[in-house]
Amino acid sequence: MSDPFVVVGGDAAGLSAASKCRRTDPERDVVVFEKGEWISYAHCGTPYFVKGEVDRLDQLLSLSPDEAEERGIDLRRGHEVVAVDADAETVTVESEDTTFEQPYGDLLIATGARAVSDPIEGASLDGVFTLHGLDHAAAIRAYLTPPAAFDVADLGGGDALDEPAVLRYGELTPPETVAVVGGGYVGVEMAEAFEAWGLDVHVFQRSELLVPGFGETVGEEVARALREAGVTLHLGEEVVRLRGDDGRVAGLVCESGAELAVDAALVGIGIRPNTGLLEGTPVELGGSGAVATDAYGETNVDGIFAAGDVAEMPQTVTGDPTWDPLGLPANRAGRAIGATVAGDPTPTGAVANTAMVKAFDLGCGRTGILDHDRAREAGFDPVSKTITAGSRSGYYPGAAETTVTLVADRDTGRLLGGSIVGTDRAAVRIDTVATALGGEMSVAELERQDLGYAPPFSPVWDPVLVAAKVLNGSLD
Amino acid sequence: MSDPFVVVGGDAAGLSAASKCRRTDPERDVVVFEKGEWISYAHCGTPYFVKGEVDRLDQLLSLSPDEAEERGIDLRRGHEVVAVDADAETVTVESEDTTFEQPYGDLLIATGARAVSDPIEGASLDGVFTLHGLDHAAAIRAYLTPPAAFDVADLGGGDALDEPAVLRYGELTPPETVAVVGGGYVGVEMAEAFEAWGLDVHVFQRSELLVPGFGETVGEEVARALREAGVTLHLGEEVVRLRGDDGRVAGLVCESGAELAVDAALVGIGIRPNTGLLEGTPVELGGSGAVATDAYGETNVDGIFAAGDVAEMPQTVTGDPTWDPLGLPANRAGRAIGATVAGDPTPTGAVANTAMVKAFDLGCGRTGILDHDRAREAGFDPVSKTITAGSRSGYYPGAAETTVTLVADRDTGRLLGGSIVGTDRAAVRIDTVATALGGEMSVAELERQDLGYAPPFSPVWDPVLVAAKVLNGSLD
Repeated sequence: MSDPFVVVGGDAAGLSAASKCRRTDPERDVVVFEKGEWISYAHCGTPYFVKGEVDRLDQLLSLSPDEAEERGIDLRRGHEVVAVDADAETVTVESEDTTFEQPYGDLLIATGARAVSDPIEGASLDGVFTLHGLDHAAAIRAYLTPPAAFDVADLGGGDALDEPAVLRYGELTPPETVAVVGGGYVGVEMAEAFEAWGLDVHVFQRSELLVPGFGETVGEEVARALREAGVTLHLGEEVVRLRGDDGRVAGLVCESGAELAVDAALVGIGIRPNTGLLEGTPVELGGSGAVATDAYGETNVDGIFAAGDVAEMPQTVTGDPTWDPLGLPANRAGRAIGATVAGDPTPTGAVANTAMVKAFDLGCGRTGILDHDRAREAGFDPVSKTITAGSRSGYYPGAAETTVTLVADRDTGRLLGGSIVGTDRAAVRIDTVATALGGEMSVAELERQDLGYAPPFSPVWDPVLVAAKVLNGSLD
Repeated sequence: MSDPFVVVGGDAAGLSAASKCRRTDPERDVVVFEKGEWISYAHCGTPYFVKGEVDRLDQLLSLSPDEAEERGIDLRRGHEVVAVDADAETVTVESEDTTFEQPYGDLLIATGARAVSDPIEGASLDGVFTLHGLDHAAAIRAYLTPPAAFDVADLGGGDALDEPAVLRYGELTPPETVAVVGGGYVGVEMAEAFEAWGLDVHVFQRSELLVPGFGETVGEEVARALREAGVTLHLGEEVVRLRGDDGRVAGLVCESGAELAVDAALVGIGIRPNTGLLEGTPVELGGSGAVATDAYGETNVDGIFAAGDVAEMPQTVTGDPTWDPLGLPANRAGRAIGATVAGDPTPTGAVANTAMVKAFDLGCGRTGILDHDRAREAGFDPVSKTITAGSRSGYYPGAAETTVTLVADRDTGRLLGGSIVGTDRAAVRIDTVATALGGEMSVAELERQDLGYAPPFSPVWDPVLVAAKVLNGSLD
């Protein structure tokens, strides 16, 4: 009997791999080490838990520890893997009361990523949060809730909750002014959440553009939506320091010298892959700093795989490695690796860097390569067009403007990427563009796709087709 | 100077072609003959005009006669082309007061299709309608409106309206019980329209399945939605006769002998291509009875093109000719032919038979080949799976069940078609499947597409991906 499939990290990639491995080969021993108490939870749902649209933390769990056990997974929470010995094919595991060596047949590194706040002085003050993990989310909601209305049981965290931290915030007077530091998608989603609690919300973004990965058109529409909702934007302002009063955040200072008094801050300026475990091992990192992998999610070391927020994957358009710490690629790669180690070799697939974000009433999507510099680096001659078209037949109630940007290579006409923004089912339309990228279509081919038409759902020419027509016309 | 580009029929295909030809070559003479008064209107919007969700007929016009003239199109309404002489390269045109021969350089046959009712005896009684054209729609709404509330000016038909017919129905007492004969998409949409006016609505369908082109799963969900909305379904009942009382419909009789008293009937049992003009010409029809065309929309006769509801186009999956009388293929083929005759040869593209239909709160979509017999005729060994998954993350408000069926070829894993049904943005998701068909993807490739994920818009695994996973798993 072979040594077990050992998984480090009990979130999306890790438990997808563990589950798929057991389903494919029910005889294989599978051990998952998770250093914390939470497993398999929906990161992307945490802003909506803070907002209150999702009532309880347990709604965000996609797999309970009991369900993992039922699948035959040997799940060890509170167990941290602190070292990998690739020669001996063992990992060193620490728990509260013991340290031991665990042999592995195959090993999956699924240690995820962490939110960074270190470029900002004062980020450890009370009232300053990142949004990474359910304990963070619970602490923020505890802080927002008036003490008289707060009951920790309402949060639905069960045994896994870091109760002391949450209880402490539950006793504090709720904040009135919050700074959201960073205008990426976490910042935008959290601005909406804070606004729903009636706070005076200020978003600080170092560049002039919100959600910059979604491109200029989407960024400008998102800025408009946030302003219309009452959020104050500070674009081109870099927060360098949070200052405290008696250990609790009281204000912030920008690089420009601008200051603002706040009593809460959410720092969402980026995340980094948790690769520390691999330092000193022969496992190689890629150019992004995440773990380099092949088409099957395997690292340069035989039998060691990596997936999820800690790993690179091939990019759909360029084929080059990309680091895209999002939910679907993590699940998909984990699942593929689980099949592969169980004897059914399965490629992880490529990632098109497809993403969606909600900004109040706006839905936004992006996929592929939008940035012209990035396209040029990949050897393309990018050209792009932006159009606005109706989401349904113009005469049908509910039709709304939908703005689509498509990018193509001038020489070959190949589609490189796209973005979309609008209030009426805009985000989901990005899937058409993502699928066209997956099919390596030219813009002319995309223009000829036979998409659906019915007045309540789509105009004759879907906004994506309108954009393809216009961009293709400009390539002639 | 060459002879003009002559277009027969002033609707979607005809005016798309005329407009694109003028844009591509502003020197080219373009003449459009339309036998009626209406041009370029949205057929698919008429049920919503009858329902009252669309107020006025003029909202359904996508191009006015004045706009056509501004584009440099010589538009002749009230001019019927009654003969084509392919040798002389002329058409014979009749108007109210003259008949003349019109030479052409290129000719486009865009004569559309007509609703059929002839298998049913009594279809010419008052109170019996088909839904083909704005005059039909106006007459139905006039009949539904109480005489005291009726004003023909409210319909927004302008000069083009067939006013005598409409005025006559405006004077009649509105019907209380209506039979919708035929449970295809027109029947389903019209059932919703009649229900909105408070009528007792009965749908008769010869087969056991509504919207049969959408497959069994969708058909059953649509039946459930109609019943829940109060519509009475008579499945497996073929209406053979409508009987009158003093010239007005009073009841119907089924093949089974069943009878029902009704005071209105809508016959939506199918349409046929208007190919009569081509009888006796060398232009060949295809197996469907519509005009056969090549990849550029040209018939077997040089310089004679056909597009829209009168013409066949190649099917995306099989490459074989298909007759798919829907809006987007008509517009797309017309546009391509306009470019081609102006000197920029442009393929019309294939049609995947993508369609969407709304049935009260349900959105439905279909694309490609769903029917196993049809798949086998095309040389495939079809296998299909149906799954139900959430439309958004399960914890996010508004998430609803979405049912997806995918069909693939067992040997190659190639995706052949799919359908979708649900209440939350289900229909628009068919575009993902349609685009995957256009990219000739296998189910395994579709499973690996990097679709968008954000809790308000889509779960980690989009319902289409869930279906691809399950179907692909069954192919192993």
